[in-house]
Amino acid sequence: MTPEEFRRHGYEVIDWITEYMKGVESLPVQPSVAPGEIRAMLPDSPPEEPEAFSDIMADVDRVVVPGLLHWQSPNFFGFFPVGSSPPSVLADFLSTGLGVNGITWASSPAITEVESQVVDWLAELLGLPETWKTTGPGGGVIQLSASDSSHISLVAARHRAGNRPDLMVAYTSRQAHSSIEKGSRVAGIGHVRLIETDSEFAMRPAALQEAIDRDREAGLQPVFVCSTVGTTGTTAVDPVAEIGAIARAEGLWHHVDAAYAGTAMICPEMRYLQPGLDMVDSYVVNPHKWMLVSFDCSVLYVADREPLIEALDITPSYLRAAGDDEVIMYRNWHVSLGRRFRALKLWFVLRSYGAETIRGLIRKHIGFANDLAARLKADARFEVIAPHPLALVCFRHVDGNEPTQALAHAINDSGKAYLTSATADDRWFIRVSTSQANTEQQHIDQLWALMDELAPPAD
Amino acid sequence: MTPEEFRRHGYEVIDWITEYMKGVESLPVQPSVAPGEIRAMLPDSPPEEPEAFSDIMADVDRVVVPGLLHWQSPNFFGFFPVGSSPPSVLADFLSTGLGVNGITWASSPAITEVESQVVDWLAELLGLPETWKTTGPGGGVIQLSASDSSHISLVAARHRAGNRPDLMVAYTSRQAHSSIEKGSRVAGIGHVRLIETDSEFAMRPAALQEAIDRDREAGLQPVFVCSTVGTTGTTAVDPVAEIGAIARAEGLWHHVDAAYAGTAMICPEMRYLQPGLDMVDSYVVNPHKWMLVSFDCSVLYVADREPLIEALDITPSYLRAAGDDEVIMYRNWHVSLGRRFRALKLWFVLRSYGAETIRGLIRKHIGFANDLAARLKADARFEVIAPHPLALVCFRHVDGNEPTQALAHAINDSGKAYLTSATADDRWFIRVSTSQANTEQQHIDQLWALMDELAPPAD
Repeated sequence: MTPEEFRRHGYEVIDWITEYMKGVESLPVQPSVAPGEIRAMLPDSPPEEPEAFSDIMADVDRVVVPGLLHWQSPNFFGFFPVGSSPPSVLADFLSTGLGVNGITWASSPAITEVESQVVDWLAELLGLPETWKTTGPGGGVIQLSASDSSHISLVAARHRAGNRPDLMVAYTSRQAHSSIEKGSRVAGIGHVRLIETDSEFAMRPAALQEAIDRDREAGLQPVFVCSTVGTTGTTAVDPVAEIGAIARAEGLWHHVDAAYAGTAMICPEMRYLQPGLDMVDSYVVNPHKWMLVSFDCSVLYVADREPLIEALDITPSYLRAAGDDEVIMYRNWHVSLGRRFRALKLWFVLRSYGAETIRGLIRKHIGFANDLAARLKADARFEVIAPHPLALVCFRHVDGNEPTQALAHAINDSGKAYLTSATADDRWFIRVSTSQANTEQQHIDQLWALMDELAPPAD
Repeated sequence: MTPEEFRRHGYEVIDWITEYMKGVESLPVQPSVAPGEIRAMLPDSPPEEPEAFSDIMADVDRVVVPGLLHWQSPNFFGFFPVGSSPPSVLADFLSTGLGVNGITWASSPAITEVESQVVDWLAELLGLPETWKTTGPGGGVIQLSASDSSHISLVAARHRAGNRPDLMVAYTSRQAHSSIEKGSRVAGIGHVRLIETDSEFAMRPAALQEAIDRDREAGLQPVFVCSTVGTTGTTAVDPVAEIGAIARAEGLWHHVDAAYAGTAMICPEMRYLQPGLDMVDSYVVNPHKWMLVSFDCSVLYVADREPLIEALDITPSYLRAAGDDEVIMYRNWHVSLGRRFRALKLWFVLRSYGAETIRGLIRKHIGFANDLAARLKADARFEVIAPHPLALVCFRHVDGNEPTQALAHAINDSGKAYLTSATADDRWFIRVSTSQANTEQQHIDQLWALMDELAPPAD
């Protein structure tokens, strides 16, 4: 394909994506394909000869689209959203089109320097400590996902703590994201304690302290604790300051998982959710969730970059270059050596929208959740099971698990909306995440109508 | 930005990338910017108000492009290349435009199923064992980079070996990629042994056996060995079969790093480089290096997926769905939970070019290396320091380190070509990687003319 053929097919792809953007609202949100059905549509053997671009695009329509959950639909209320916006998409196109790789500062200085500047901007916008900027002792780095960011924090904590990972213990709440338990396991940390939570699903600091005491008595080595600001299940908020104080007193690395909720801190009035950041060692926020930035863009901040780099720096001769000491070498901030120019999309989004527009969006989404919660609370069939400080409402049918799960399936099977269900203490509930970038009031109204229609009356 | 505005700006971005593709050859390959120079061009504070798309694009030209090393230039002979091709770029646009996320099979079945099918195709094209396909006991998965793929193999090996990582030992050659040492450290494996190499930079199996014996006597636990097919320094090839036999006898996990060279196995005549794949547990090949696929697309194959999944599977309730057992859950094959639709670009590339075209490209690139090596060998100023079975030639000036390094700098500073230098046993040499997708014979001729002009006569 020559550059001119690329231009022609590029326009076609732009047209295709434009029509997808305009039409996604009317597609069934959830696909209805059986396991193996998509593979069965593909040839068993790889192609020996070239195929026409139009044939491949036809298969995108025939094979791919029917097999997608449409995360960019305004009727998508599942999980947490995957960020997207036209400027982010275009910035990512540029990144792919340039085809550069930031394995060292010198291997494309713009990759490192735009990223440093933009993560510093983000720190300022989110009200994070000044010392967390790359211009201070700390710094931010773009990772693939929050799982990667948290894993790297666990590795830094483990490395700082010595050489007996089998005796080390990591703590987080029973409501924390699975990535903390998984990251601990990947990092070889011998023990993970899932600390009990209070009635609002937040970690109980007293229970954390007891677990630490018990582990020390058993000869184990507590090394890491993760506070979550906005859990995946219910957006519960752990008491960051109290956990931080325990971490400080006990010498634990204190990580904060704000992958979803961190974006909301662009609104100063939301920062009450995370007091005590002066007692935090690392912090993850995913602009690819709620900040209109395309996946993947998870930003890990550290208060002090030295232990992170100490844990990860291995520099062979063929990667050394003059002036290395003057610059940031992001390869020492994560597992990968190669890196895409991911900062472009954060840069484009922040500039295209400006902070004030993003604040307005966050407030609108939180308003949707409040609106929906009020309707649920006013309806005798429903019970809101958790506080909703952000853009997620969790509720159940008052008659228990069966009608709750049935309602979730009925909504998803309708194709008109998509939401996820989950359990806490064996009680099923439905999560409605109201921060999809394309969602407007009318979609909330439609969802409510659907819930109202499909939910059986209370016994 | 509305969809129609996206269309308009999308065309602009396509035009921009088309012009970049056409013009990249005439740009100085290496940027000339000082540390901090790019950051200094960006505002200190983040934008509060929206900026026009045209202003941001103007900054791409003003700030970004002068700060890039142009990996897609046909005059780029550095490192190993980053793959790219118009169909791959367009496929990645679609991935970004769709904005979907494969956290589970159900969260977009097409992501998992196209990936499974395409990595099985790739296994067939590369002549990998039938059992490594997802239809058998093994399987392939797309990871971000070879560093990630190797790290995950180390984690699986460590997990299988027990609970005292501090006593475990991983082995690889002194010429192996740094990611093996780094991955071992990240995985918490207590010891890494860099085994000595022979005169052709390949691992000496006898030295490996001795190191294992020594470590066992010291009470340590050997768990992992990595063979490299095509080292980063010189494309040296470790004796995979002999190392595999030792690994099998000693109960070690045997990983093969063919990140670069693996693509060449699409040509059956190259497979002599990797006999003994029946004694391999995991294998990494990066289509994003030499197979025209845009970064990131590193494929990790395992002969048996059970130990990998056993090491990584942690499934919370909110991710469980009916039918999970019937499908592949790729989140249990790597650290990340979220995943882009990266298989699209491999699918588009294989179909757009067909295997036979890719074979032709590989053979052409290897021919370039042979051509260049012949010219170097015929010139009294130069010494080719290693075999060149693939598309990399390593040479030095016969008068030693100083003229060798001076020549590398002079070529890079000319802007007309870019290559990297490295050391082996304190001897500096120049690497010329001839597999950039846009490189043609004329660029090899121009590079040779430049080397001829800039190299001083031998003493």
